[in-house]
Amino acid sequence: MNGVSSSTPRSDGPPLLPIGQPLPGNAEPIERADAARNRALLLDAAQQLVREHGVAGLTMDAVAKRAGVGKGTVFRRFGNRTGLMLALLDHSEQKFQAAFMFGPAPLGPDARPVDRLIAFGRTRLLDIEVESDLHRAAEEKGRFGGGPYGLHKAHVVLLLRAAGVTGELPLIADSLLATLSAALVIHQIAILGYTRAQIGDNWEWLVRRVVSAGAQVE
Amino acid sequence: MNGVSSSTPRSDGPPLLPIGQPLPGNAEPIERADAARNRALLLDAAQQLVREHGVAGLTMDAVAKRAGVGKGTVFRRFGNRTGLMLALLDHSEQKFQAAFMFGPAPLGPDARPVDRLIAFGRTRLLDIEVESDLHRAAEEKGRFGGGPYGLHKAHVVLLLRAAGVTGELPLIADSLLATLSAALVIHQIAILGYTRAQIGDNWEWLVRRVVSAGAQVE
Repeated sequence: MNGVSSSTPRSDGPPLLPIGQPLPGNAEPIERADAARNRALLLDAAQQLVREHGVAGLTMDAVAKRAGVGKGTVFRRFGNRTGLMLALLDHSEQKFQAAFMFGPAPLGPDARPVDRLIAFGRTRLLDIEVESDLHRAAEEKGRFGGGPYGLHKAHVVLLLRAAGVTGELPLIADSLLATLSAALVIHQIAILGYTRAQIGDNWEWLVRRVVSAGAQVE
Repeated sequence: MNGVSSSTPRSDGPPLLPIGQPLPGNAEPIERADAARNRALLLDAAQQLVREHGVAGLTMDAVAKRAGVGKGTVFRRFGNRTGLMLALLDHSEQKFQAAFMFGPAPLGPDARPVDRLIAFGRTRLLDIEVESDLHRAAEEKGRFGGGPYGLHKAHVVLLLRAAGVTGELPLIADSLLATLSAALVIHQIAILGYTRAQIGDNWEWLVRRVVSAGAQVE
């Protein structure tokens, strides 16, 4: 976590993403890099489909067409539609992790902690809105024990500390992240009729009050 | 909601609880009042058992023994153990609702809004800790659409407004209540090893920052 807390930008790139850079003089890594690149290509196509048509638009056939490959390739890679959906959520999660750890400001390390916290929530809300069914399904399988939750929490704790917040930071982080639960956000959008912007404003309002900690609020 | 927002104590008692007061000159209400009293007696016995031995200690047999009635009475009243557990959760929820709407300070109307908010969370945390399995099971069946959640949210919105908080109060209330989700609290207690007092302190910390709204925090 030490490297992440630095405010200098990292130039070594996200280790969680398949980079797709062939290594010279070694055939096997090149093959693996190609496979990773093809996988990322298919998942980017799948992500576009979900953003355009919702989860209902995500079929093996549509992904194959969008990516310009045969349907068999998609089946060989992901097994079935459930496998594709899980891979897509993982893909989206890894992009998010890379962005908040190593990406450009305001989400990445080149911005002030409070601005990074605000961007963290707003970016997460976009993912939840766009891939709502995926996020809700993942959450129902047990939210707090999972890897992504632990990483988000560690990141929020780190930013709270950097912003000078004192208190039981892991519990404060749980409280902040609770307001970004997919089930709650989807209820607010689909049932209560709030926009993502309004929910993002509420997140920012909450973050500013938590970070103020006796200092000036605005 | 107008009567609830008043800071004068209500003397007409909680309408949500079966009061058990026989009405003179009418046989049927007396019978119903007796039935309600017996039901409350059985549920109080069940609640004691859960507080002493956890949900595992809640059997039809144990409830009958504790209440001093035959086992058949418990079965006739609740059908089976699941029915008993649902009735117990409902009983506990109605006690909580009566307490935060009409009960003594600091939960009830005789206290300042910020103190009522703090007491709301601390009381809820006790219920969640004691009846954890019941609350988690109820939450998994859909949390936000349910009646109790809507009432809690309306109450929190009312207290936030009374405390002078401005902003999108329903979203702020959702954010505050999210930190009291049974799944989160049980994870914090059972897996992370926090005490209820620590989680209550975090709730109070959060409430004070939300309510401060530019004013002095402590």
